[in-house]
Amino acid sequence: MLSDGVRIVGTGLMGASIGLALRKAGVPVTLADISPTARALARDLGAGELAAPQSPVLEPGLVVVAIPPDVTARVVAAELRAWPQATVTDVASVKSVILHELTGQIEPIHTSSSAAAAAGGHPVRLPPLTDEQLARYVGAHPMAGRERSGAIAAKADLFEGRPWVITPHPDSAPASVALVEELARQVGAQVTLMDPDEHDEAVAAVSHVPQVAASLVASRLRDLPTRSVGLAGSGLRDVIRIAASDPAMWTAILTGNATAVSQVLQDLMADLAGVIEALSVLGAPTEHDIGAREVLARLVSNGNAGYARIPGKHGASPTTYAVVTVVIPDTPGSLGRLLVTVGEEGVNLEDLHLEHNLGKLTGIVEISVVPAAADPLRAALRSRGWTVQD
Amino acid sequence: MLSDGVRIVGTGLMGASIGLALRKAGVPVTLADISPTARALARDLGAGELAAPQSPVLEPGLVVVAIPPDVTARVVAAELRAWPQATVTDVASVKSVILHELTGQIEPIHTSSSAAAAAGGHPVRLPPLTDEQLARYVGAHPMAGRERSGAIAAKADLFEGRPWVITPHPDSAPASVALVEELARQVGAQVTLMDPDEHDEAVAAVSHVPQVAASLVASRLRDLPTRSVGLAGSGLRDVIRIAASDPAMWTAILTGNATAVSQVLQDLMADLAGVIEALSVLGAPTEHDIGAREVLARLVSNGNAGYARIPGKHGASPTTYAVVTVVIPDTPGSLGRLLVTVGEEGVNLEDLHLEHNLGKLTGIVEISVVPAAADPLRAALRSRGWTVQD
Repeated sequence: MLSDGVRIVGTGLMGASIGLALRKAGVPVTLADISPTARALARDLGAGELAAPQSPVLEPGLVVVAIPPDVTARVVAAELRAWPQATVTDVASVKSVILHELTGQIEPIHTSSSAAAAAGGHPVRLPPLTDEQLARYVGAHPMAGRERSGAIAAKADLFEGRPWVITPHPDSAPASVALVEELARQVGAQVTLMDPDEHDEAVAAVSHVPQVAASLVASRLRDLPTRSVGLAGSGLRDVIRIAASDPAMWTAILTGNATAVSQVLQDLMADLAGVIEALSVLGAPTEHDIGAREVLARLVSNGNAGYARIPGKHGASPTTYAVVTVVIPDTPGSLGRLLVTVGEEGVNLEDLHLEHNLGKLTGIVEISVVPAAADPLRAALRSRGWTVQD
Repeated sequence: MLSDGVRIVGTGLMGASIGLALRKAGVPVTLADISPTARALARDLGAGELAAPQSPVLEPGLVVVAIPPDVTARVVAAELRAWPQATVTDVASVKSVILHELTGQIEPIHTSSSAAAAAGGHPVRLPPLTDEQLARYVGAHPMAGRERSGAIAAKADLFEGRPWVITPHPDSAPASVALVEELARQVGAQVTLMDPDEHDEAVAAVSHVPQVAASLVASRLRDLPTRSVGLAGSGLRDVIRIAASDPAMWTAILTGNATAVSQVLQDLMADLAGVIEALSVLGAPTEHDIGAREVLARLVSNGNAGYARIPGKHGASPTTYAVVTVVIPDTPGSLGRLLVTVGEEGVNLEDLHLEHNLGKLTGIVEISVVPAAADPLRAALRSRGWTVQD
């Protein structure tokens, strides 16, 4: 039970947010971090208490290791040894590599060079864990984050409604799995149970490869003339929004999921090579271009099919919403007044897309609503003086 | 002068929108379309008059060819021959290939197979235009569009504040260039003059390659288990939003800009191959992984640099905005009430990003404002009862 106490190792954004959420619910929390400043800051923010070195230590029921993926396995192993009864979980965004490091199938890949150097050039492995120790480990990945990092960015509601993937291994103890599920639910997350490999393949496709693609597309803008970049519209902005991410964090994530990401990228590159081949045929006038257009049409059509699979709002099935487009003056409060009107009409907004017109003090707002609500909303907005596009 | 009359050939979204905008300003407009239904619909919508076959025809001052890129050059050539005084422009999203088709440097690539078949297997070329005829052609590309197509989706303000790239060739008559500029300004667009090749290279990087990348990433979702797709967050949604595009339209666009798109994609693929190579090194434990992490860090870092180049609101220089994050109840009108409050505080909203929490009736709103406005806004919103995240 969580009420037996939770020990959080690593008091950055994730660890401190878990601490804040648990403390709010009255769960006893102790905090540990390799940095005295970081752990004291998390304590000051209300994420838990520091373990006092001199006082007798009560064994926690659950240990949460919330540190970068490249050091997670070593610390998980140390915690499993230190606490003979506790369940140990982690929050790293890659799962298979950590399990393999713990079971000794592979040496910790991220630290191999430096560890090997420290060992005089000999490869080092973690000493093997016992079956009993391994049974108390249950990996997890709460799919929440922020653009800011550190305990100062932590918040008790970080996990509200977000997926919390739990990845037991075949020998995980059912009681340990249940305890990690209790943690996820306590902080407001939605539990999804997955095999570690299934998790890694999923996040490769829905998170890691999109990050690589956004970075690759954004990279192309570096040497473009300024006025060419000036032609960028909202399509480009959407594609590369996540390209403004932290290189160090993503290096660790991509390294930790190297195999699954590489597999998806290889499939992507095979398609890309086909597109380049088709374009090279079409770029040089020839009579031998049969099939080249099909490659391009299939590229976009397959993209349509993939796009249609992403879930709608609230994790529901994919839904097509109707879009109501309104031109608003670009002055403080005009968007707010528009949306108040939408609310007064009893229409719930499913999504909203805002586009500023280049060089003009007006904006275009695309409001997604359920299809049946679109025409009445357009009529209502027009009757109240808004400029609604057909 | 526009007041001499404008003839619009092709009454789809673009042509009909130009007609609506010109009619609003009192410019005489005649409409032509290969489809009697399409041209009558555009007339009914108020985009202009149909040319009556029996009545004497006044030569227009300007002809706007607004048809798909793969048939544009043939129709531009026919219009240049039909009207001995008129300036002829087009709105196709690719420019070099059309100019080359008109100057006879290449045969029309898009129609080559069928035209060759019609000519009994012999390649056909457009009969050459005279220097005088070519001087009256000025290519253009209004960078506006909608997800809907056809005259029914047309609107007079489609081009308001959008870039209208004009691509004269070296022998374009200055008076013809000036007339096309007058057209662009009349419909509210922002004129940018570019060389056709410069235009094609720019849109390859800011529009066509992002489309290919979005389609490639979205394609990867096709065969993913449903619960894996369920882990998708707003990052993926942003990257693949434009993957819901029309395959036929994009096949024509990519074909028409094959060389420039291929060049950018080849650069992208070289980077991608490096990433895959680095991941394969990191995925197999080895002591020989020196440099592999650098490839990944440089990928993301280069993406940062490219991202930083996209213009801010209103086409201004790139600006970093501060983000104020607010949790709102997912009920009609709550977002509106929030933004009214923002407006009442005198803060102008630079961008807005809306995220629904999976399975929860709350939403998270990220409001971008100029950095100096962020902290006062957070304080003001809190004092008025809103849940603002740090």
